[in-house]
Amino acid sequence: MNIAIIGGGAAGMTAASRVKALRPDWNVMVLEKTNFVSHAPCGIPFYVSGIVEYFEELCTYDVAHFRSERGIDVHTNARVIEVGDGYLVAEENGRERKYEWDKLLFATGSRAKRLNVKYEELEGVLCVNDITNAEKVKKWALKAENVVIIGSGYIGVEMAEAMTRLGKKVTVVEMAERPLPEYDAEIAAVLKTEMEKFVNLRLGERVVAFEGKDKVEKVITNKAEYRCDMAIVAVGVHPNTEIARNFVELGKSGAIKTNSRMETSRENVYAAGDCAESINVVTGKSDWIPLAAPANKMGYVAGVNMAGYELHYPGSLKSQITSFYGLEIGKAGLSEHEAIREGYEVVSAFVTTKSNARYFINGLVHLKAVADRSGKLLGIQAVGKGVAMRIYAASALLYRGANVRDLFFTDFPYYPPVSRVWDPLVVAARNLFRKLGIP
Amino acid sequence: MNIAIIGGGAAGMTAASRVKALRPDWNVMVLEKTNFVSHAPCGIPFYVSGIVEYFEELCTYDVAHFRSERGIDVHTNARVIEVGDGYLVAEENGRERKYEWDKLLFATGSRAKRLNVKYEELEGVLCVNDITNAEKVKKWALKAENVVIIGSGYIGVEMAEAMTRLGKKVTVVEMAERPLPEYDAEIAAVLKTEMEKFVNLRLGERVVAFEGKDKVEKVITNKAEYRCDMAIVAVGVHPNTEIARNFVELGKSGAIKTNSRMETSRENVYAAGDCAESINVVTGKSDWIPLAAPANKMGYVAGVNMAGYELHYPGSLKSQITSFYGLEIGKAGLSEHEAIREGYEVVSAFVTTKSNARYFINGLVHLKAVADRSGKLLGIQAVGKGVAMRIYAASALLYRGANVRDLFFTDFPYYPPVSRVWDPLVVAARNLFRKLGIP
Repeated sequence: MNIAIIGGGAAGMTAASRVKALRPDWNVMVLEKTNFVSHAPCGIPFYVSGIVEYFEELCTYDVAHFRSERGIDVHTNARVIEVGDGYLVAEENGRERKYEWDKLLFATGSRAKRLNVKYEELEGVLCVNDITNAEKVKKWALKAENVVIIGSGYIGVEMAEAMTRLGKKVTVVEMAERPLPEYDAEIAAVLKTEMEKFVNLRLGERVVAFEGKDKVEKVITNKAEYRCDMAIVAVGVHPNTEIARNFVELGKSGAIKTNSRMETSRENVYAAGDCAESINVVTGKSDWIPLAAPANKMGYVAGVNMAGYELHYPGSLKSQITSFYGLEIGKAGLSEHEAIREGYEVVSAFVTTKSNARYFINGLVHLKAVADRSGKLLGIQAVGKGVAMRIYAASALLYRGANVRDLFFTDFPYYPPVSRVWDPLVVAARNLFRKLGIP
Repeated sequence: MNIAIIGGGAAGMTAASRVKALRPDWNVMVLEKTNFVSHAPCGIPFYVSGIVEYFEELCTYDVAHFRSERGIDVHTNARVIEVGDGYLVAEENGRERKYEWDKLLFATGSRAKRLNVKYEELEGVLCVNDITNAEKVKKWALKAENVVIIGSGYIGVEMAEAMTRLGKKVTVVEMAERPLPEYDAEIAAVLKTEMEKFVNLRLGERVVAFEGKDKVEKVITNKAEYRCDMAIVAVGVHPNTEIARNFVELGKSGAIKTNSRMETSRENVYAAGDCAESINVVTGKSDWIPLAAPANKMGYVAGVNMAGYELHYPGSLKSQITSFYGLEIGKAGLSEHEAIREGYEVVSAFVTTKSNARYFINGLVHLKAVADRSGKLLGIQAVGKGVAMRIYAASALLYRGANVRDLFFTDFPYYPPVSRVWDPLVVAARNLFRKLGIP
């Protein structure tokens, strides 16, 4: 059997490894357009700030490992330009080559969204989510003095910290009225206050153009203009589906439609990772969740099924955490405004307590829990101290379809320096009890 | 209605508050034998080491708060000496008084086990779990030079750190072959190595007697003897059931039998907290789980039901975390040896990985997951870094009856400084897949 995998990122390499582990005799070929495999772009902000010293550390394993240890036929600098039934054509080192496949996986990932405004192509206007330009971002970052970051999603927030740590003057321009707009206003407000200590945070502003001669010198918004030597566009990502879109069906999101075995609309063709849709476990609907951990698991499931076994991907929760100068922020499931947009009739509780026992010095945690009228949990967000452990727990509860009683009664471990005897999660549940008429 | 509550600790005060919140017109009386209410003995080691400065901080709220803010009729220094149908007799300030009740709650807590060996009554042989002697323990600790701690459960481990932080020479004597014997050997081994850096850890030794003239001078074991100026007996607790035992049925553990409404065998009589049995959520059987967070929730449930509403306590998981000089240790559900003792046919996975992304400096986490042959999760233990968040998540999964697929597919948030794209929990699940024949 010939297995072809387009894309050597998290999903592609996990799938390749899985097929080879289950079917050592099969040929497994990975075609990767860059020079790198199993690249981990989540680490780029830490590479830019210098916490991660070497660029190579951003790749979990190198090509040689996959070839010699796992027996995977990895082709780097191999750009697939055509896919047809049972074959594909790749451009490798300037030459076109045709390969046959019995089973195919699209693991083509995502790419940074552009603003599509004037002079965005100027030198010094950079995106961050692509491993190939991590070194370029770092080089520009080191010599810049004024940096404008456009967007305050996870990457925008993390780059804001990285750049200020490097001593740069940073302006963050965000279209929405708050940073991390996926979060509800109560949570984002805490982050906003913290960000404003370090950066010039411009909310409710839309970038309309860049300006500069040889390189970017100015970012123009609908309200003002900001001088800069570098601009980072971090306004989200698109699924990479150029090759796939004429071959398999796409979903509403623009990513490739899949079922729980990561099969596409075409037999023997699979999709996994940032280019693929999957199930949002909270809503039960198809969603597009381009995140590293789900990408790895989709790749794992695709690999098992391509190898002729059966494993189903139940979907993910969009669980995430990040931090800004020690202020942790995390979310699993839906925020209140996302839940309302999805049509739920919601109740929510917002609590602020210390993160651990009152007699220990430590910070506060602000936590919001959202449920529907039946008591089903829809999402949990938190900001402050001790966020990671609450979002880990929230992920487990949401994944298992928990309701507010489960949130209340789950036996969270109490250890005074770390947690509270009435955990903020439990206090939030108790508040929801009140709103739902539970005594 | 007259509500009488015996015991003003976590369970008692929570129940009292709940009844008053739901039935402001009812009389709610709490009889507490000490001078303190809502005392939190979990904090004693931190009070002894000086991290918690004032003894009063160990009580969440004071008596005045419960009286004036919550309208609860709190009697301190009130020892109940007799209970009969509809009445009880208490000794208050040297006088016996009789009270009538329509509903009664036993929230009498637990007390430290004694070794029952020779000269245990010597001055300087102290227990730690009782709020009334916290100041005494501290006073002795400050002047002692050599301290012997008997037992290496949670209290023993925490007191070992507290005492060495105070500069004492500490010997820990443990009957079992490892510290924290509830944990499996792989986990305990990591703690053992760490403890041996700070204390003289004597495993497999049984204390047979104390010696001394006016005060303790020596601890004698079956193998050796240790000079000391102070000995701490931390070998577990007993439920306090002296008054209850002739009035309501006790369970196998010796604690008071309850149903999920915290009702005892006698109508209108409830029990909650360390004196009561409840359900072990993993085994589904009655168990005795004397821990602070479950005690509070049992008190809450008892209060709701005593107030005439209905709420069921589903039980707990014995979830716990502690730490020893920064080494975190935690557990939810059963260890492998506990699961075997319960009759399960088990599979287990023990993994050692970094706690966060490989390119960040941080410690290792050692994690063990135990499941039965059907794949049902039975317990998770961990030691090292990032333990709290994994045990929080494990608690949520175990509480919701998760299996190994759930452990694998739960969408844990990935943020490089804090977690891993393949979380140790997920890696452990993958190991279990192999043993259970899941591809």
